[in-house]
This record gives sequence, C-alpha cells and structure tokens, in this order.
Amino acid sequence: MAERHDAVEVITAKRDGGELGDAQIDWVIDAYTRGAVADEQMAALAMAILLNGMNRREVARWTRAMIASGERMDFSALSRPTADKHSTGGVGDKITLPLAPLVAACGVAVPQLSGRGLGHTGGTLDKLESIPGWRADLGNDEMMRQLEDVGAVICAAGAGLAPADKKLYALRDVTATVEAIPLIASSIMSKKIAEGTGALVLDVKVGSGAFMKDLDRARELAETMVAIGTDAGVRTVALLTDMSTPLGRTAGNALEVRESVDVLAGGGPADVVELTLALAREMLTEAGVTGVDPADRLADGSAMDTWRRMVRAQGGDPEAPLPTAQETHVVTAPATGTLTRLDAMAVGLAAWRLGAGRARKEDPVQAGAGVEMHAKPGDTVTEGQPLLTLHTDEPERFERALDSLDGGYDIGDGASYAPTPLVLDRVAAG
Amino acid sequence: MAERHDAVEVITAKRDGGELGDAQIDWVIDAYTRGAVADEQMAALAMAILLNGMNRREVARWTRAMIASGERMDFSALSRPTADKHSTGGVGDKITLPLAPLVAACGVAVPQLSGRGLGHTGGTLDKLESIPGWRADLGNDEMMRQLEDVGAVICAAGAGLAPADKKLYALRDVTATVEAIPLIASSIMSKKIAEGTGALVLDVKVGSGAFMKDLDRARELAETMVAIGTDAGVRTVALLTDMSTPLGRTAGNALEVRESVDVLAGGGPADVVELTLALAREMLTEAGVTGVDPADRLADGSAMDTWRRMVRAQGGDPEAPLPTAQETHVVTAPATGTLTRLDAMAVGLAAWRLGAGRARKEDPVQAGAGVEMHAKPGDTVTEGQPLLTLHTDEPERFERALDSLDGGYDIGDGASYAPTPLVLDRVAAG
Repeated sequence: MAERHDAVEVITAKRDGGELGDAQIDWVIDAYTRGAVADEQMAALAMAILLNGMNRREVARWTRAMIASGERMDFSALSRPTADKHSTGGVGDKITLPLAPLVAACGVAVPQLSGRGLGHTGGTLDKLESIPGWRADLGNDEMMRQLEDVGAVICAAGAGLAPADKKLYALRDVTATVEAIPLIASSIMSKKIAEGTGALVLDVKVGSGAFMKDLDRARELAETMVAIGTDAGVRTVALLTDMSTPLGRTAGNALEVRESVDVLAGGGPADVVELTLALAREMLTEAGVTGVDPADRLADGSAMDTWRRMVRAQGGDPEAPLPTAQETHVVTAPATGTLTRLDAMAVGLAAWRLGAGRARKEDPVQAGAGVEMHAKPGDTVTEGQPLLTLHTDEPERFERALDSLDGGYDIGDGASYAPTPLVLDRVAAG
Repeated sequence: MAERHDAVEVITAKRDGGELGDAQIDWVIDAYTRGAVADEQMAALAMAILLNGMNRREVARWTRAMIASGERMDFSALSRPTADKHSTGGVGDKITLPLAPLVAACGVAVPQLSGRGLGHTGGTLDKLESIPGWRADLGNDEMMRQLEDVGAVICAAGAGLAPADKKLYALRDVTATVEAIPLIASSIMSKKIAEGTGALVLDVKVGSGAFMKDLDRARELAETMVAIGTDAGVRTVALLTDMSTPLGRTAGNALEVRESVDVLAGGGPADVVELTLALAREMLTEAGVTGVDPADRLADGSAMDTWRRMVRAQGGDPEAPLPTAQETHVVTAPATGTLTRLDAMAVGLAAWRLGAGRARKEDPVQAGAGVEMHAKPGDTVTEGQPLLTLHTDEPERFERALDSLDGGYDIGDGASYAPTPLVLDRVAAG
C-alpha cells in the first residue's frame, strides 16, 4: 500500500457524497477481506454507497479490487474463444442449460461457473443436479480439459474467486444493502471477470418475478455492468428481458431439465427457444464468431450432442429417466376466456414452497418439485381445464403453494390482451 | 414485545426514507443491547439515520428506548429542586467547576454525572482529579447524601445508565456515524434524563474548537435536544455559545481548576464569569427558583464555601497546592498590535499534545499540562511579550504542540477587530 487509509476516513468520504480514490478502494476491500476493516465499518460504507452512489471509475475500481482479493482463471490457452452468460435470475429461467451446449456447438467455449438457488428463482446447479450422477464440483484442470474436449462446462464456482465478494454479499444480506446497484453490479461482474471469460452476455430480468421490478433500474444495472466489463477488457453486452411471466412452461429442477432437453431436440416452448437463440447470437458476436446460425445447430442435433457429452463429462447419465415428484395437484381454469396474466412471482413462490427452492443455504431441494404451466398468457382456456399442475413429494406443501398462486393469474377478454415482447432492450458498451 | 421485528425490515424502512414506528425503535434498541441485532446491522441503520434523519417523535422514542435499556436515577426525595448543565465540549471549558457549587449555593441541587475527556476538549473529571485526594467514583447512596448535604456533586456516570448508548457510541465512533444530529442528541439526552435531573441547561458550543463548526447545525442540535428533554418531562433550555476562541485563559487540568477557584473567589476571566452566571441564571429559572442573584453568591463567598465542601466530600483537599508541570515554554508575540484571533482548536490541540488530554480511553493524562494564555482576542500585545506559556512534564512534547499553534493566532490592527458575543442565541421549548 502506497498510502495508509483509515476506515473512518473512507466511510466519511462516501457519507459526505465524495468520490472514493483508487487507493482508498483498494485498501478498504483488501483490509475487509483480511479482517482489518470490521463488518460494522463495511456495513456503514455499504449503506453510504447505497444512498450516495458510486461513479463509473469507482465501480470499476471496486470490482477490480474484489477480483484482486482472490484467484483469476485464465482460458487464453484454449484453442477457442470463450463466452459466458449471466442472468440476474427469473422464474423458469433454465436458459443456461440449452444455451451452453448450443454455443459450444457453434465453436465458442462456455466456462459457466454457477451458483445454487436461494429464494424463489432457483439455481442452475440445483436443476442439473436432478440428472442422476451429475456433479457440480470440478477441479480447475478438469474444467479446462472439459472446455477443450466438449466446449461447455457448467460447474460450481470455487471459493477462490473473489472472496471479498463472498464476504461482502453475506454482510449486505443482513444489513439491507443488497439493493445498491453499484454493489449488485460489482458483485456479479467480479465473479464473471475472475472466471476468465473473454466475452459476456448479461440477461437482466425485469418484472414481478425479477429482482428489478422496473425497467429504469434494470437499465441502470445493465449499463453499470456493461461499463464494468468493458473497462476490465471483457466484451460485454446486456439484454433486458421480460420477467413478468415465467419463462417456458415449467418452474422446478427436473421439470426444467426436461424442457431444456425438448429445446435441444428442436422443440420446446417458443419463448425459451427465442431467448436461447437471442442470447446465443449475442455470445457468438461478442466472441467474434460469424457465419454460424445457432438455429441450425439446434436443428441438426449438434447442440443436443454437445449437451449429452457435457452431462456425461460430469458423471451424469443424459439417458436416465429424470426424477418425478410423488404427488401432483391440478389447478383448473375457473372460467373460459384468454389467460391474460400469469404472474412470475406467484409461480416462483409456489415452486419454492413446493420444495424446488430453499429458504436457507443449507436446505436441500426436491428434484421433482415445481409447477407445470398448461397455458401461458395469450392462450385460450376453457373453464375446468387444467391450468397448472403442482408437483411435490410432500402433499402438505400444496396449501401454501396454492396460497401464493391466489390472485396470480387473470382470465379475460382476448381482444384486450397485448403480449409483452420478451426482449425489451439491448445495452451495449457506449 | 407486542410485535416481532426484523433488523433488515427496520434498516430498510429508514434506508428508504420512511419513519420508524415506536415498536420498531423499542425493539431495535433492546435487541441491539441484548446482542440480537448485530453491530453491522446497527451500523447500517446508523448510517441510514445520518443520511435520512429522524423526526421529533422518532428521536424522542429512540431516546426513551435508550433510557429504558438501563437504570434511571430518582432525586424526587430531595428537599430541593434539581438542575444540571451539559456542554457539548469546548477548549478551556471549565464552567462546570464554578457553576455546580454556585447553583447549589443558590438553593438548587446539581447532580452532575460527568465523563473523562477524549480528544482536544478535555474532561471535567480529568480536571477535578488534579485536586489531591479527589475521587470521581461515588455510589448512588453517597451521591444522594452529598446532594442533600452539600447540594452539588460532580462524579463519574455509572455503567448502569443507558447502556445502549454506551454500546452505540463506541460503534458510531468507528463507523463515521458520530455526526448524525438525532444520534448525538439522543446520546446526550438519554444519559441526562436517566440521571434524573428535573431541569437541564445545555451549552451548545459553536466554532472552530467545538464539535459543531457552524451556527445552523448547532441550532439544529440544540432544538433537537430541547425537544427531547421537553418531551421527556425535563425542563430544558439551551444557550448557543461561541467556541472560536478558548474560554478563559487556561486550557489543561490543574490550570483550569486554578482559574475556576479564581472565579469562585470573585475574580477570574470576564468570559468565564459571564458564562457561569448566564448558565446559573438559566438553571435557577428552569428549576423554579426566583429572587436569587448568583452574582451575589460569588461575591459573598457562599459559592466558594460550597465548592470546598463539595471537594472535601469526595476526598479532595481544596487547600492543597495543585500540581504544576515540570517544564514550561513561552511563546512570545511576533509583532506589536492587537491579538485579533486565537483559535480554539489550535490551543485545544496544543494542550492535548502537551499531555492534558488522551488519544485513547485508557491513556493517562498529566495534571499539570496545558496552555496558559497571556492575551485574549482584543488585547493589545507588544512584540516579544509572552503570549502563551506551554506546560508539560515531557519537554519532547513541545515541538508538536508548537506545530498545532502554527497559524493559530493573528496580530493585527485593533481598529478592524470586532469581538464576537459569547452567548450567540438561546433555544427554549417551542
């Protein structure tokens, strides 16, 4: 450290609306990681950042300091360019599952370090763990070999990446400072940049089922993250996508794997296919690969082939039957008309309460639990037809799941129904 | 608890600019005192309060909850009304020493629970402890007996008063949240109200040597404290007084005791006498005592008599010689003219660096150390005459003390000198 800093000095500067200097940021992140800055000091600083903000230089430096707190992976030895995708989290968002093998089948390596779910949105690793035998934990050498051989890997992020972020995230969670855009953006980007990807496509969700409920805040988050990636030398672009209704027709772990396989087989729900292809095209562009249409790789079976190799490389059996829940409960349409609304948060909470998600990190999840949607907004429904099927191993969970669906959908006049576009906007480096 | 509250919910409410409910405030203070709300959570809340404020109801409730965290003293059995004074801290501010016996000599009991100094302003107990034999620690029974017999007691506050404040103050000190007016006001007032005084006069200092550098913030603090006292049933009034220059002609422990005794003997510097009488008159009025002029009690020796009895009651010898420092260094006037400025902060820092104050709670202080001022603003000085005498037991301290005095005074043209009034404003219950 060229300069000695004091935590109170750094907090005071941000509290009074000032900018933090590079040396102050480097010092405070390093000292917090080492324990020389106390949790209560970082909590006060996080609240001051939430209320007074950080500018582009500060956020870039903050992210860089968090990356510097741990190891940084390097895929420059690979024979292919790399690209990754990050979603801010949505209900029924299984896109990573078909996307990673699809992009790999187009010639771009996808090193996807992922997390487990907490709350109503589910986690990619939880979904894949419903495949018999599949394991999330890989060593760095295994990961590198799989990227070279298969082209895609989805595995658990090691504890060595951005440990400052891990510590800070846990702190923000108990101090009501999760919602600060500079802190959200730097948390996501520090892990993605440390992961070593050359290009990154962000899927920033907007709507009832997303962390960001309104388009303006989502755009601010997207712009902040694109700026951080760009400033760190990672080609970064973001799509703002609708999360007022769930993606696809399933929310749950094995249920979503099944739907992902349908997409890889050339079928699947139109919205999942549309978003998978849109994100794949962005990833290929950012990775500098032209002249390949990912739709062709779905049609010719090469994406499915890569999926099977990816699952097998991590011990999974792609042909094995997926687990199913022991109990189901059907919700029928209360009227005839057009389904004009199916709320993402209501469905996400229902899936969570059925056992697909966890309330605390250490909770187990049910592989078979979740919600199957027999109709999506815009579809015509007839009174008494199945609208949703709820799946769980524990029938006592139905009641609370049904509570969360109460008021979660509307059936009305089709003439007044106007569909929301799936991709709302695109944010590129400015 | 009628309701269950969650720390994140309380922090979020204040973070988002909302008002905290009574039950939320009661819960969070109690839970923090018990350790159920963590330091990092209270730090985030304190920063949110600093940046988003609290209204009169919230501050009153916050103070009440801090009082409820500990014991509350009760002087209603005394035969006399009670009044106390609190100063926000200034350089050379020895006013408590002549004031407490003076007011007692006028028929009002003064139960002054005091603290030790930290930083440049010095502490009342540190000053009194320079009197041979004097002790600050009294039991509640001793205190009550001395109040009945002598009428005045200045002693250390027990740990039982407002323990929530003690814990919160230590937290604010390391998290840059000391400066929040609602938290400053509730910290001071919780201790003063718990102390059980019936009337309270606040001396809110303004200027370079004070915690509050500008009049507007000082007035806001005064108004907040007067409102808290009034809402808690304590008759409270505040004077805003100048602290751009030190009070009197000494800053240090034994040096200030000597000056206080001069005032009690009917002499002493004019500003110390003026402020002592102004505060005494406010205390008598608030306590409902009329027809007594405190100036008479200085003139007739009864205040001095009460002082001697007060010192003796706590083991001190009022006739014993006071300690003096082993080394002195004289600063002479660099020019002839009028002393137009003598900066309170410069003198306070010099006294502190000479050994009169402490940097950490556990540091000792020197009884004899400090600064003697041979001229005050408005006085004519001649080049080469003594301007200041520095006192310390450790001559290696002179250099840093002299550094802090560098630029701390101006000698100029008397025609352009306009004295600042000592009492700047008065804030009464509105």
